[in-house]
Amino acid sequence: MKNQEQTRYHLSESDIPRFWYNMNADSPVPPTPVFNPITKELITKEALEVLFPLALIEQETTMERYVPIPEEVREIYKLYRPTSLIRARRLEKALNTPAHIYFKYEGESPAGSHKLNTAIPQAFFNKISGTHAMTTETGAGQWGSALAMACQMFGIDLEVFMVNASFLGKPYRRVIMETFGAQVFASPSPQTKTGRSYLEKRPDHSGSLGIAISEAVEVAVESGGQKKYGLGSVLNHVMLHQTIIGEEALKQMDLAGEYPDVIIGCVGGGSNFSGLAFPFLREDLKGGQRIRLLAVEPTATPSLTRGIYDFDYGDSAGIVPILKMYTLGSDFIPDPIHAGGLRYHGMAPILSGLYNAGLVEAVAVEQRAVFEAAVQFARAEGIVPAPESAHAIRAAIDEAIDAREKDEKRVILFNLSGHGFLDLSAYDQYLHNEITNGKVPEAQLEGLAERLPKVNFPG
Amino acid sequence: MKNQEQTRYHLSESDIPRFWYNMNADSPVPPTPVFNPITKELITKEALEVLFPLALIEQETTMERYVPIPEEVREIYKLYRPTSLIRARRLEKALNTPAHIYFKYEGESPAGSHKLNTAIPQAFFNKISGTHAMTTETGAGQWGSALAMACQMFGIDLEVFMVNASFLGKPYRRVIMETFGAQVFASPSPQTKTGRSYLEKRPDHSGSLGIAISEAVEVAVESGGQKKYGLGSVLNHVMLHQTIIGEEALKQMDLAGEYPDVIIGCVGGGSNFSGLAFPFLREDLKGGQRIRLLAVEPTATPSLTRGIYDFDYGDSAGIVPILKMYTLGSDFIPDPIHAGGLRYHGMAPILSGLYNAGLVEAVAVEQRAVFEAAVQFARAEGIVPAPESAHAIRAAIDEAIDAREKDEKRVILFNLSGHGFLDLSAYDQYLHNEITNGKVPEAQLEGLAERLPKVNFPG
Repeated sequence: MKNQEQTRYHLSESDIPRFWYNMNADSPVPPTPVFNPITKELITKEALEVLFPLALIEQETTMERYVPIPEEVREIYKLYRPTSLIRARRLEKALNTPAHIYFKYEGESPAGSHKLNTAIPQAFFNKISGTHAMTTETGAGQWGSALAMACQMFGIDLEVFMVNASFLGKPYRRVIMETFGAQVFASPSPQTKTGRSYLEKRPDHSGSLGIAISEAVEVAVESGGQKKYGLGSVLNHVMLHQTIIGEEALKQMDLAGEYPDVIIGCVGGGSNFSGLAFPFLREDLKGGQRIRLLAVEPTATPSLTRGIYDFDYGDSAGIVPILKMYTLGSDFIPDPIHAGGLRYHGMAPILSGLYNAGLVEAVAVEQRAVFEAAVQFARAEGIVPAPESAHAIRAAIDEAIDAREKDEKRVILFNLSGHGFLDLSAYDQYLHNEITNGKVPEAQLEGLAERLPKVNFPG
Repeated sequence: MKNQEQTRYHLSESDIPRFWYNMNADSPVPPTPVFNPITKELITKEALEVLFPLALIEQETTMERYVPIPEEVREIYKLYRPTSLIRARRLEKALNTPAHIYFKYEGESPAGSHKLNTAIPQAFFNKISGTHAMTTETGAGQWGSALAMACQMFGIDLEVFMVNASFLGKPYRRVIMETFGAQVFASPSPQTKTGRSYLEKRPDHSGSLGIAISEAVEVAVESGGQKKYGLGSVLNHVMLHQTIIGEEALKQMDLAGEYPDVIIGCVGGGSNFSGLAFPFLREDLKGGQRIRLLAVEPTATPSLTRGIYDFDYGDSAGIVPILKMYTLGSDFIPDPIHAGGLRYHGMAPILSGLYNAGLVEAVAVEQRAVFEAAVQFARAEGIVPAPESAHAIRAAIDEAIDAREKDEKRVILFNLSGHGFLDLSAYDQYLHNEITNGKVPEAQLEGLAERLPKVNFPG
């Protein structure tokens, strides 16, 4: 009982998990195959080795339930982990709800978000494989900042292709990456064939995550093995690394003496939601699922709620492996909303499979309602959330209001994946009534099924 | 021994101190009198009550050793306290030093700095005294953000006068304050007589902390008791509230099984340094002092190292009570450096007395060397520090190098008073070689003694 009175639930350094959890070991949905974007045949390990070190490729396909976290990675996790689990008591009071609202606060990471959880092992496994240089893309800048920090700590050079709209609109994110020693290019850039082809069409192209991925991958492919590529979401090994969030949260909910009825996270590629949800799903699958898992996406990029579950390219230029996922089409250009980290056309294959099988729910929310929730949360709890994370807050508040209306106790757990200190221009617009909802891209969804790549199943 | 291997030293919620520590109870230097800026006579309680609620005035003059922290204040402290004590192992390694470097990380506060430690009790004691509206000033924006958050939580309206240079150069800080519901004016502003007088001379006046203080105080004085004023540093009650930092750090150093040889903090008004140092000084005074206490200031605002220890106004317009302190003169305009929080002409009276008595050392450091230290720290520890806090890092690194050169073990503890997520334009300038050191203001120091106000000692 005493524990239930706390606000923050701390764990000690020795509680940092020693294993990541692999959802594929327990998921009722078997892993889906990956295809070569050029040949449309099943991808080979050799083709993947152009992009990733062997250790990460093995993590991508392993069916082992637990993957050990190397001691060198745990050492750096100690700089910010375990992160706090916080009971949002003041928000509960403001909402006058019988619900209990908990959040796992990944914004305590010095890079500002959960992205560091996978950046550190990606840099580590590259380092021990002899990689001296990496490339990546970044949208809002959270992933680029995290990988820049991790590469700095392992002595790896990093080139970041940053979506031009963010490069211009979020200069502070570029400065963080440069402070950590990374080289940052506005994407599309003159550095790559892909970039040049977009710049020829439009010299002031605002870019997209799909284009930036194409550029980063092209540089790795063209480097003749000198540079590897790092992706901040979507892939199985990224979901794996992020489960450290849920493993900690399991212990912390236990300290609080409660168990969630619903787990909520925002989804772009799906990694912060999956990282929190999968360890809880594992426990639930042991005894028949009883937690609701709720993924929250923007109405402007509704991959789960409006997309097709099929094979598609991971990038715009079609040079990244083809994955089975919920997709809006690799040529999808979302309306410019402030949650840059959610503006991706696809969704992690593992999460896509679980959603398709009905084990995960999804909801799309509008940008203005998201910022309304963000400001309400900030005023109650003091933390200014990232616009991405505020999608989860919106849904958590809606759940708490629903619980109030039904007069039922409900334990809500959401992932506050990052802080918003570098997104304040968006708050400025919201506070001065200059924010729009972003349009649902009806036209872009027409004829989508026909535009997807056709892959060759073996046999 | 086991504890010595940790990186972060956590305390639990129940370890949040229940008392603030009052240095005046143990200081060998007696408190100095305060004078009315208009009459130059000893100030009366009635004159102070125009600005502050009675509870804070009592804290200002109390000689009690311990002042209880109200439960309502501890409840909000729980949102972020106890903050971490972190061993900077990676920095030690990078410096190849036998020194052990610890830092108390006040940037974990949701407002981004230690300022919230006093903002919360100031808002609370105002609230219970019936205050519905407050005014304040802010330089870099750390104090304004903290008080905006605290006022929001206690339902108090807040007007903030923000130094115009920061208002223009740090728009994100304004947005944070607005997100927490505060009204923000660029200072000098047309809202006050003081502001208008400066604007008449120069419509694009860049402002100063001294002018902004004058404006905030004027609004409170002119409100006929409707609005109270809050100050983020300098005064005794602010030092008192900040001792929560040192009380926690004492317990945490004990967990680490070490005791500091030197304690370091940056000083503008002196509150973050005093907050960390005073509880350690209390322990040392029991058995004869053996810790060195090192205050670090910018060469561009060298109050301790170049100022005069005498009575002076706390603000530029001369409407704030006269305090005995190290001062560069209330008309002092510092060179524009990025550590806006350190650009104050005076210094807390308690700290001034201790420095004058030789119990505290001081050093002035140059801006370029400060940013060099900041980037080295960020690359080792992942945290991008506020430019103010980076002054402490500079001195800590210098101590660690000195220990290496003398081949001696030295335990260094410094206060990392805030993060630098809202100061990245300064990093941008540093990384692109556009930062200067700021000049030592020789001309402004000439004839200083003659310009100070003459107060009337009683009897």
